[in-house]
Amino acid sequence: MGRQILVDSHALYYYAFTVNKLPIGVLGASGYAGRELCALVNRHPSMRLAFATANEQQGTTTRLGGRDVTFVAADQAPLGEAAVVFSALPHGHSRAWVETARTAGARVIDLSHDLRPGNGCEGIPYGLTELARDRVRSADTVSNPGCYPTSVLLGLAPAVAAGIIAKGSTIHVTSASGVTGAGNSPKRELLFAEVAEDFRAYGIGNTHRHLAEMRATLATWGADADLTFTPHLLPIARGILSTMIVELSEPLANPSSIWRDAYANEPFLEYTDAPPALRDVVHRNVARVHVVPMAGTRKPTLLILSAIDNLLKGAAGQAIQNANVMLGLDERDGLPS
Amino acid sequence: MGRQILVDSHALYYYAFTVNKLPIGVLGASGYAGRELCALVNRHPSMRLAFATANEQQGTTTRLGGRDVTFVAADQAPLGEAAVVFSALPHGHSRAWVETARTAGARVIDLSHDLRPGNGCEGIPYGLTELARDRVRSADTVSNPGCYPTSVLLGLAPAVAAGIIAKGSTIHVTSASGVTGAGNSPKRELLFAEVAEDFRAYGIGNTHRHLAEMRATLATWGADADLTFTPHLLPIARGILSTMIVELSEPLANPSSIWRDAYANEPFLEYTDAPPALRDVVHRNVARVHVVPMAGTRKPTLLILSAIDNLLKGAAGQAIQNANVMLGLDERDGLPS
Amino acid sequence: MGRQILVDSHALYYYAFTVNKLPIGVLGASGYAGRELCALVNRHPSMRLAFATANEQQGTTTRLGGRDVTFVAADQAPLGEAAVVFSALPHGHSRAWVETARTAGARVIDLSHDLRPGNGCEGIPYGLTELARDRVRSADTVSNPGCYPTSVLLGLAPAVAAGIIAKGSTIHVTSASGVTGAGNSPKRELLFAEVAEDFRAYGIGNTHRHLAEMRATLATWGADADLTFTPHLLPIARGILSTMIVELSEPLANPSSIWRDAYANEPFLEYTDAPPALRDVVHRNVARVHVVPMAGTRKPTLLILSAIDNLLKGAAGQAIQNANVMLGLDERDGLPS
Amino acid sequence: MGRQILVDSHALYYYAFTVNKLPIGVLGASGYAGRELCALVNRHPSMRLAFATANEQQGTTTRLGGRDVTFVAADQAPLGEAAVVFSALPHGHSRAWVETARTAGARVIDLSHDLRPGNGCEGIPYGLTELARDRVRSADTVSNPGCYPTSVLLGLAPAVAAGIIAKGSTIHVTSASGVTGAGNSPKRELLFAEVAEDFRAYGIGNTHRHLAEMRATLATWGADADLTFTPHLLPIARGILSTMIVELSEPLANPSSIWRDAYANEPFLEYTDAPPALRDVVHRNVARVHVVPMAGTRKPTLLILSAIDNLLKGAAGQAIQNANVMLGLDERDGLPS
Repeated sequence: MGRQILVDSHALYYYAFTVNKLPIGVLGASGYAGRELCALVNRHPSMRLAFATANEQQGTTTRLGGRDVTFVAADQAPLGEAAVVFSALPHGHSRAWVETARTAGARVIDLSHDLRPGNGCEGIPYGLTELARDRVRSADTVSNPGCYPTSVLLGLAPAVAAGIIAKGSTIHVTSASGVTGAGNSPKRELLFAEVAEDFRAYGIGNTHRHLAEMRATLATWGADADLTFTPHLLPIARGILSTMIVELSEPLANPSSIWRDAYANEPFLEYTDAPPALRDVVHRNVARVHVVPMAGTRKPTLLILSAIDNLLKGAAGQAIQNANVMLGLDERDGLPS
Repeated sequence: MGRQILVDSHALYYYAFTVNKLPIGVLGASGYAGRELCALVNRHPSMRLAFATANEQQGTTTRLGGRDVTFVAADQAPLGEAAVVFSALPHGHSRAWVETARTAGARVIDLSHDLRPGNGCEGIPYGLTELARDRVRSADTVSNPGCYPTSVLLGLAPAVAAGIIAKGSTIHVTSASGVTGAGNSPKRELLFAEVAEDFRAYGIGNTHRHLAEMRATLATWGADADLTFTPHLLPIARGILSTMIVELSEPLANPSSIWRDAYANEPFLEYTDAPPALRDVVHRNVARVHVVPMAGTRKPTLLILSAIDNLLKGAAGQAIQNANVMLGLDERDGLPS
Repeated sequence: MGRQILVDSHALYYYAFTVNKLPIGVLGASGYAGRELCALVNRHPSMRLAFATANEQQGTTTRLGGRDVTFVAADQAPLGEAAVVFSALPHGHSRAWVETARTAGARVIDLSHDLRPGNGCEGIPYGLTELARDRVRSADTVSNPGCYPTSVLLGLAPAVAAGIIAKGSTIHVTSASGVTGAGNSPKRELLFAEVAEDFRAYGIGNTHRHLAEMRATLATWGADADLTFTPHLLPIARGILSTMIVELSEPLANPSSIWRDAYANEPFLEYTDAPPALRDVVHRNVARVHVVPMAGTRKPTLLILSAIDNLLKGAAGQAIQNANVMLGLDERDGLPS
Repeated sequence: MGRQILVDSHALYYYAFTVNKLPIGVLGASGYAGRELCALVNRHPSMRLAFATANEQQGTTTRLGGRDVTFVAADQAPLGEAAVVFSALPHGHSRAWVETARTAGARVIDLSHDLRPGNGCEGIPYGLTELARDRVRSADTVSNPGCYPTSVLLGLAPAVAAGIIAKGSTIHVTSASGVTGAGNSPKRELLFAEVAEDFRAYGIGNTHRHLAEMRATLATWGADADLTFTPHLLPIARGILSTMIVELSEPLANPSSIWRDAYANEPFLEYTDAPPALRDVVHRNVARVHVVPMAGTRKPTLLILSAIDNLLKGAAGQAIQNANVMLGLDERDGLPS
């Protein structure tokens, strides 16, 4: 609990912006997830941005979350001064910096693929916040889930927990993501004139990196189900929709109740009566899920639709949510719902 | 064969635009498919637009295919003068006009759902052109396939013909379509500000009208496989991508050869080495298909990707292709490839 | 000043959400501006939504600003209970409801065209907040500026105040707006497939309704300059960019200093070193302005670029800003910057 | 005139695709304009693509205009075998290749800025086709106009010819272009996630390279008028709209008749009764123009709106049109109208 203080009621709203803020660092702050992290920290009632690194853009100032942020080189960042350091560094480059920050005394949330399940880092909590609060709370290092796995696993978790998936069956996942998921490095195939009015699959044939992360997590949950995963690139900036087809062990009269119950007390998990649209979740730290049985099929089959903002619930938002848990703050602090 | 004529070589290119053109009528010409039909007829080397009907917009003149088209009321159209009448009228309203046009002596190609498989019209050829040339050639009435079924069935046909699909398995189809597939009636949910930056599923739970059309056609092909179908709405104007997951009866070393062989002599079916993108097929009367085995699955599983322009190969283009066959023209005439 | 209270510091952030909130009403809440108003009120630290009316959609519940809002019929709204009523009713329908709300005892901010300059309502303050704080503070009724006039007038005001515009010259304004500016009534020309990949002028030849509002305001400022105004429709959801060309009475060595000085203490007016982009202002209640002399012209000519979010600074945001002033709150409360 | 030949009428349509085709070369074929050139040549009734160069992408095969095109290195292209060589090389790199191609014996159409008015190349015809047919017909080298100048100059030409512009006045041009105008080099600011939902001015303050080209051309036409030019970047793939404000020497009762008369016999210049929309001109080699007097201004003022496809009439299409003239073909051959 906080201490007792006497304040002018007019000043209440701005109070949080002036005292007692926790210093936060962001490594790899110039990418889309890194910028989103800086913006969220700058608007957070109990955090302040201690540093934001971006080697190529060091010295550049950008307005993020209503404040100017000047990027510094990573090797000049005062890692040890931060209560929490987020690493949004590229896959393969993050692990070493996580260790450096840990050595300097900071707790670390890594948004890269480096420490995720399937990578030989099983001791590190996998921060699907709603499913890992206790482990996250006491962790020094948390691996923040990938964007596709977040949309898929939050949608599947109630089905796995309820034991309704047919044993030995295959879960088929088709996902579509906005282009911010591909980062902001200049590549010809990501130019506006190439992406606009287009749609295509990529990472096909079960070759996408996120598949291992999802399979390893399903295995830890004890799910006896195979998985296919086919991602697509959408001509939009942000958002992921995962369309999942699950074979049930038996027909269910009212499958939605399983999700309603599972999400009942979760501020960031929403079960809706209609198929979720990306416009309902972008710029919000939520997952929206809807389920419906497939009509007229030989085997009982369930459609699960799950929508998130890839940069918020699928990256920076969930990272802040994890940080809130680690730091003993209200889990909802600073997160748009 | 044509007659022998003596011409100046300079005049050759324009010759087709001046003589021997076949009169063509379009019912329901103000919708997206109807406009596309008018444009294709106006650019066709052997067709001319005899009339184009649009009751609500009668008297309106629009430039389509490089020529001005003035819509007339349907009951004032000289149906009997047309060699072929296309009906792009709304579902439910088309069947009666098809009969009226037939009575007036025209051959008819119906783009609506009214005469398609599963609707009790089994005597009428289903004009997936590549698979129905002989029946289309001699038909007085042809039912033009729906846009989703065209993308799905052209992609599945080689698998069915080759007998590689596991008996009793389920084919899972996830499709995404541009908004022209939803027509141009003013609806709030189709406004730019509602569709842009959005993506969502609709017609979920195996409830979309096109499912029956696909199931009935697969049944006529003798395919012993169940089907699920989940369409999505894309924030683009045109194009459909169908992502299909098929369980194989046994692993295949080189599945792509089945599609390469099946499409080898087809001018409008393209097997490609990479996943098809909508930008590769829009404004073209083609289907582009790519297949790849799913890696690391317990059961042998194949991914089939199929892309078309919903207004061309999925509607007006295929309708012209069918008309070319009916009229004894070169099947490629007037169709952008 | 607020009263002195003793609180737990943990509770500070949520304090504003539980006590002392001012009841606010929104008439015409189902349009884009109305929805934005509801969302801003729901997130405002000192306001709560007392009612939101939408006759056609009465009974419908929508999530706006993190809370569910159920629309009621206008004639069932408890107008008198609101500290401030916003009217986002259509032009022509708003004036009567403004009077009804005033009679019921509410202070009113009208977002329609009905009470704006040039409409014979000169006694009512025109709420370009930064230029009208004193009049707004004590007003019972405020006319909230139109979106185009806001972008234009905030950009021009420093030039008029500094007296640098050549007397008798003509200011040429070319503006481009996202489609939310056209409302969410279903019209064919606003369908996604019609607007995407398009750009066009409309209301051309100085015929747009907002011209009179701008001319009347410039006249009250004593500006001796003529005006042309040409709006365009952008294939984006929100944002307005106004490109203004002004003839100067004499060349200026450093024109930007005029804007820098004028905006120095304004939280919502930003002078930037580069041309403003819509992406820098959408979802923010700011105007971003940049000026640059035209090189190599015979007469000294200045280019003024001004960007706003048409739904925030151009409508609902500025309305909240005015309400903050009227209610004695901090002008920045509840407004994203 | 062509020679007399005896042919089967069925074969007429395809005749042009098999005999008597003129060999055409494209330098710099991998950019947007270069690809469009290759596609137009491949569909042209009297041209065939002899070679297409792209040093960085040499060996790559792309489908353009219904045929596969394999890029070769520029120094391996058989320049001397081409009847016409198009250079779509970058500004600054093109001039030397134009000379090389000329030395090899080819006639050349240069799409770069290098040989345009204002660059000290006054002997070379400036290929605004409709205004330069005689000079183009006999030229060995033609400088193809820039995209913005094409939209601006074709719109202004009738006003200049009619002498209606006030002497000593300033023409104010505000233009907006799709992103293909910026080329397909990978740059961060052209990524989809940066351009979508954005709009901004660039090259401001009369600093854009195309201004000199427009000024020099207006000067050769004897126009005594100054010019300002402010381009903008649109979140669309292709199309340019130029919004031009002209002070008239006296009010005109019926200004549109000037444009109607000037465009009367031009297949690619269209005067329309409504403001032109980009969707009316993209994928077509036309300029659409509309004019309207500004109402209620002190000085008689005319608004001129001009729309083109930047890659067709603004680049590759006009280049083909010029080549048709140079080669004695019908000027309309192979060009979509």
